[in-house]
Amino acid sequence: MQKVHRQRLAQVQSKLADRKLPALVIFSRANIRYLTGFTGSAGILVVGRDGWAWLITDGRYKLQSREQTKGTSVKIAIAKQTHKVLANILKRLGVRQVGFEGRHCTVAFLDGLREELKGTKIRLESVANIVEELRAVKDEGELTNIRKAAQLADAAFEHALKVIRVGMTEQELAWEIEAFLRTHGADAIAFPPIVVSGERTALPHGQPSDRQLRKGDLVTMDLGAMVNGYCSDLTRTVVIGKPSAEQQRLYRAVWEAQQRGIEAMVAKQKGKKVDSIVREVLDKHGLKKLFMHGTGHGVGLEVHEAPSLGQRSKDILRPNMVVTVEPGVYVPKFGGVRIEDMVLVSDSSPEILTRAPNPPKILSV
Amino acid sequence: MQKVHRQRLAQVQSKLADRKLPALVIFSRANIRYLTGFTGSAGILVVGRDGWAWLITDGRYKLQSREQTKGTSVKIAIAKQTHKVLANILKRLGVRQVGFEGRHCTVAFLDGLREELKGTKIRLESVANIVEELRAVKDEGELTNIRKAAQLADAAFEHALKVIRVGMTEQELAWEIEAFLRTHGADAIAFPPIVVSGERTALPHGQPSDRQLRKGDLVTMDLGAMVNGYCSDLTRTVVIGKPSAEQQRLYRAVWEAQQRGIEAMVAKQKGKKVDSIVREVLDKHGLKKLFMHGTGHGVGLEVHEAPSLGQRSKDILRPNMVVTVEPGVYVPKFGGVRIEDMVLVSDSSPEILTRAPNPPKILSV
Repeated sequence: MQKVHRQRLAQVQSKLADRKLPALVIFSRANIRYLTGFTGSAGILVVGRDGWAWLITDGRYKLQSREQTKGTSVKIAIAKQTHKVLANILKRLGVRQVGFEGRHCTVAFLDGLREELKGTKIRLESVANIVEELRAVKDEGELTNIRKAAQLADAAFEHALKVIRVGMTEQELAWEIEAFLRTHGADAIAFPPIVVSGERTALPHGQPSDRQLRKGDLVTMDLGAMVNGYCSDLTRTVVIGKPSAEQQRLYRAVWEAQQRGIEAMVAKQKGKKVDSIVREVLDKHGLKKLFMHGTGHGVGLEVHEAPSLGQRSKDILRPNMVVTVEPGVYVPKFGGVRIEDMVLVSDSSPEILTRAPNPPKILSV
Repeated sequence: MQKVHRQRLAQVQSKLADRKLPALVIFSRANIRYLTGFTGSAGILVVGRDGWAWLITDGRYKLQSREQTKGTSVKIAIAKQTHKVLANILKRLGVRQVGFEGRHCTVAFLDGLREELKGTKIRLESVANIVEELRAVKDEGELTNIRKAAQLADAAFEHALKVIRVGMTEQELAWEIEAFLRTHGADAIAFPPIVVSGERTALPHGQPSDRQLRKGDLVTMDLGAMVNGYCSDLTRTVVIGKPSAEQQRLYRAVWEAQQRGIEAMVAKQKGKKVDSIVREVLDKHGLKKLFMHGTGHGVGLEVHEAPSLGQRSKDILRPNMVVTVEPGVYVPKFGGVRIEDMVLVSDSSPEILTRAPNPPKILSV
């Protein structure tokens, strides 16, 4: 893995050179893992245009940080007060202009760092998306992990279909999904599974409750695995027993919107265009107002990352991006439907990475 | 629970009045949950000195936020761009000076908010610890949850002692612990269990690996449950088979340091004093340099919260604080020992909330 980390660091350094930025301070854990392999919960990475990189972490991670970054050019500094050590490194290296990840840096940390840099000529500049842009396009090693994570999500959904029964609680079903993922090769879950039933399916991000599943319920399951740090994300809505006409109607509209969305997932497409295609389908069914989140998001080291498929997205799809397509409609006091798959973008037709059954009529279990 | 949330909001409002601060913007999820009961993953709470409070969240949490804050005075605003709505609320309420949680607010969010407030006379001021100070002292309802979480951690450790065997991997043992917690009443785990063995016990925060347990290994398990949002935190180090003289020596020193630390946990004691007492014991054994983290931390809605028992701590212990005491020594290429319990501070002797066996000689399994 060290070779890939060296290459990625070199890519960042080349981007810094393009922007005439001598150094970048990285706070995002996912970005740090991407560039160095370090997985600790605390750390700051400073990357210099001229080829150096320092990882500042605390005593708990002394051995782990060395072990995980072996073979890269990253130097390790162990510190209790990271802002002081960071300031010292910046002073010693004689950089003037320093970018930092404003979305991942707290105001309090920046205040502390500014205090340490008083009297120097070092200027700090909030920058965004330098590493995230690289992460949005996956390499083969990453795709291998994402495919495994997607297969595990599929298998967990199939498992859920086997064990689901009237009388079990949302929490019990969520646990069945999580335990399956964790005992079939996931290093972690990508996020706590969402299992909502009945009227609670109108909560797009509801937490599993002790509500018992009943005949006639809609049940939405949103789940994902993590494999070697890489996530998957899959949602299905099913019905227990025979669906009502209204359940069927909602489902069919969401399914159609999702299919049109997926078809539009080709390289050079605008993220916001996919979103508007999906919204148009829902609009045709009079359901647009009941869809109050974005159409999709990239998936990788984080379960939500670039690019975004939303109304304000400025992202353009590129080959080897992995993106969810997940329209939903949510009717208060009735219930909701969401269908989500992960799609691999290429120059030709999109490849759907999640393979769980996705029929045009709601699955009756 | 609504009554308790109303009281807590009133406490914050009274602290704002003391500081002559008309309003406070709260970003910390734990602080928001503490004050309102809202458990969503995205939200900003603005509390005014004059009794109003607004929770700004997005469409995904429309129903959930209403449901969870029912009976409090909190008003809900649903927004896609939270900084814009926040700016509008601040403008409409006519406040001038606004505090915000600088430790929980990103630089990018603050920049966006400042942009929206251009041309107004509203001044933003980074403040810290207003809600955290309240959270450090637990009420009876919180203690009930923490006691349950501590009992679950004890039970999970006992379970681990039953299933541990030569040849199983660290990951397998970690999963046994996690699955036990999740199927015996925890709503979640407080953090992914740490299980490290052999030389890897020298990693204070190592992730469980596929290393197989061997005879003669030290094994450190650090685990915690979450019950109704409240965490527990427990660490034990055991040895598989007969301990070596050096393993025994390290263990005994850590145990002694922990006992002296726990005895010092009384109201009005300084956090840094407890830390220095622990360090002195380790120093006596020539091990001080091998203890490179703090002695302990508060536990509640977060597994690490105020107060801190560290060399730079300014905290003073007060009755009904719940704090860990967890010295450790870590010998590179040999292994380490850490022993951690949760302690409830009172005016008289401390109560140890975690009851897992903690003998003066290392437990041989």
